[in-house]
Amino acid sequence: MLQFEFENPTRIVFGQGVENTVGRETARHASKVLLHFGGASALKSGLLDRVRSSLTEAGVEYRELGGVQPNPRLSLVLEGMKICRDEKIPFILAVGGGSVIDSAKAIAAAVPYAGDPWDFWEYSASPETALPVGVVLTIPAAGSETSGSTVITNAEKELKRGLTSQLLRPRFALMNPELTMTLPAYQTACGAADIMAHVMERYFTNTRDVEFTDRLCEATLKTVISNVPRALENPQDYAARAEIMWAGTIAHNDLLGTGREQDWASHGIEHELSALYDIAHGAGLAIVFPSWMRRVYRHDPARFARFAHEVFAVEYDPFNIERTALEGIGRLESFFRRIGLPVRLSEAGIPADRIPEMARKSTLKGGGMIGGFVKLDSAAVQSILEAAL
Amino acid sequence: MLQFEFENPTRIVFGQGVENTVGRETARHASKVLLHFGGASALKSGLLDRVRSSLTEAGVEYRELGGVQPNPRLSLVLEGMKICRDEKIPFILAVGGGSVIDSAKAIAAAVPYAGDPWDFWEYSASPETALPVGVVLTIPAAGSETSGSTVITNAEKELKRGLTSQLLRPRFALMNPELTMTLPAYQTACGAADIMAHVMERYFTNTRDVEFTDRLCEATLKTVISNVPRALENPQDYAARAEIMWAGTIAHNDLLGTGREQDWASHGIEHELSALYDIAHGAGLAIVFPSWMRRVYRHDPARFARFAHEVFAVEYDPFNIERTALEGIGRLESFFRRIGLPVRLSEAGIPADRIPEMARKSTLKGGGMIGGFVKLDSAAVQSILEAAL
Repeated sequence: MLQFEFENPTRIVFGQGVENTVGRETARHASKVLLHFGGASALKSGLLDRVRSSLTEAGVEYRELGGVQPNPRLSLVLEGMKICRDEKIPFILAVGGGSVIDSAKAIAAAVPYAGDPWDFWEYSASPETALPVGVVLTIPAAGSETSGSTVITNAEKELKRGLTSQLLRPRFALMNPELTMTLPAYQTACGAADIMAHVMERYFTNTRDVEFTDRLCEATLKTVISNVPRALENPQDYAARAEIMWAGTIAHNDLLGTGREQDWASHGIEHELSALYDIAHGAGLAIVFPSWMRRVYRHDPARFARFAHEVFAVEYDPFNIERTALEGIGRLESFFRRIGLPVRLSEAGIPADRIPEMARKSTLKGGGMIGGFVKLDSAAVQSILEAAL
Repeated sequence: MLQFEFENPTRIVFGQGVENTVGRETARHASKVLLHFGGASALKSGLLDRVRSSLTEAGVEYRELGGVQPNPRLSLVLEGMKICRDEKIPFILAVGGGSVIDSAKAIAAAVPYAGDPWDFWEYSASPETALPVGVVLTIPAAGSETSGSTVITNAEKELKRGLTSQLLRPRFALMNPELTMTLPAYQTACGAADIMAHVMERYFTNTRDVEFTDRLCEATLKTVISNVPRALENPQDYAARAEIMWAGTIAHNDLLGTGREQDWASHGIEHELSALYDIAHGAGLAIVFPSWMRRVYRHDPARFARFAHEVFAVEYDPFNIERTALEGIGRLESFFRRIGLPVRLSEAGIPADRIPEMARKSTLKGGGMIGGFVKLDSAAVQSILEAAL
């Protein structure tokens, strides 16, 4: 186990109706907020109206900024930044899923920064302070409700980049599993792939002696695998929705990554996919992850065999660890298929022609390499994407 | 899954040598502290000297108060309270295990309270504010380093009582597994029993649809079960010590209890044992827990069978769930024996004569009943203790 620091002060309020406490929770922090959200669904469901009422009742003034898209754009972040500066708004309230929360965090970091906010995603500057953020979560997937991460797309530069800072962990997250019952099946499945990827990016590590976090990772993966099919079969299944929602948070608050080297190549590669093709992040991960696994499993077949056995109950064959390992990868791919996700680029309508470009871009941040478990150059990334065609 | 709130803002710094950052960590909160510790071991090992140097280097003034005993006493808490009031000390730094931390928290709650501090443990008052507490942990067991709980013994009244408040969660916990290498084998084993009991008090629940936290509980128990024998065999095994230490924290920060009814009868019964006989808390739990399980397992044999199968790899016999359940209880008892703990009152030299008195006292707080999974009256508690003779 490696040295580590861990601190996740986000206050979580979980259960039916908790979104109606948003006024009270927000009033502890600010009397004026930027109410940030996405598109039609929060409006249509009545959620936004309930949030407005709760804020008003608690005496919290709000300025609205909707329109966050999946793969949230820098342009809207800059708009939010300007509003907060002009109107001296000290708190961002995100009502939505990962894209809305990430956009809110990006605004929170941008407001007090004197330079060009994109600096943070170019890694030429780090936030030294940020406005506080609160969350009403509607989609279990990104784990952004308690994480310090924000992934932003610069449409002009065709770049999608992640930033992580302890300063960006939300102050509170209100989590009502009922709000996720109206998610389309495809979005539920995409969320599951994202949650599982957050765990697996931590699970596949070169760090030895990490039994506890291995087991926590396996517990989280098994919970998602057993509950997502139930939620797809019966979208109103509160129990299944609750398990997925809570697992989605723990998958990415970094408890599961404590004391471990992590990987994050699959996320990096996927970011290039969705920067160019605007595919849902979870669908992109369902394509990239199994292909990445087949490329790297020989680096540590025992770890992949453990994954197969513990997560997918593959019989452990000590005389053929490679076969055990490969069977686990196959089961993961089958699971993604079963829940309705593409597992090949062609199934998502993505052609081969820009693969070299995506491979090159994905390794830019790391000086030509990406990944922690196995370091991949752009040729290796290219072969992973080609194998997923 | 039930509604829940969860908030654990304690900053954790984990790994070799982290105790040497205590000055820097403390200086973020206060420039004068009460340095609270136990007996000879922290002095002998040189830990206390390193802590003093680190505080001095960081410009933090300290007033010392040592002498915390296992089952920490109210009398010392009152002494600490007086010192902090007289010398206007705004922060308590605990260097030690659960007893020292609990004593520190009790002082932290007592200082700003106008009434008799024992009110808190009589449940006639709740803390409305408390001084902040920091921790350098030396014993993985109580989980007090991030929990909001403090258990105090009133020697005069022969009562040992627990208090829980979000206000009492420490600001930081510095956790170096090396500091636990010098623990005597018996204390390592007692710690393991305490950690496991913290998980099991949450695991045995009447709440349905708690798959995720069930799995997290099982992951934590399996980690302790696999690593404690290693630490006993080779006390210098850093990896095993680290697994136990981190599992001990997560076992009791209440992540594993989110959304679940809990039990806590075994803890309550054990408190009466150690109030009268000053037996180590973990040893008392090793005696009480299996006996409690045999008394209550028929209330939900399926849950006990799951425990047996998932935690102790007992083959699941769907045609005889009771046998599967009982085999799990037997394995737990064998595990406690194997790591050197008593599993009968007689093995700890505790006679039968005061059993009725302990049974009565244990149910006082709950108006004649104790426990969440199964409600037990004093006659039931008496039979649990008698079965453990």
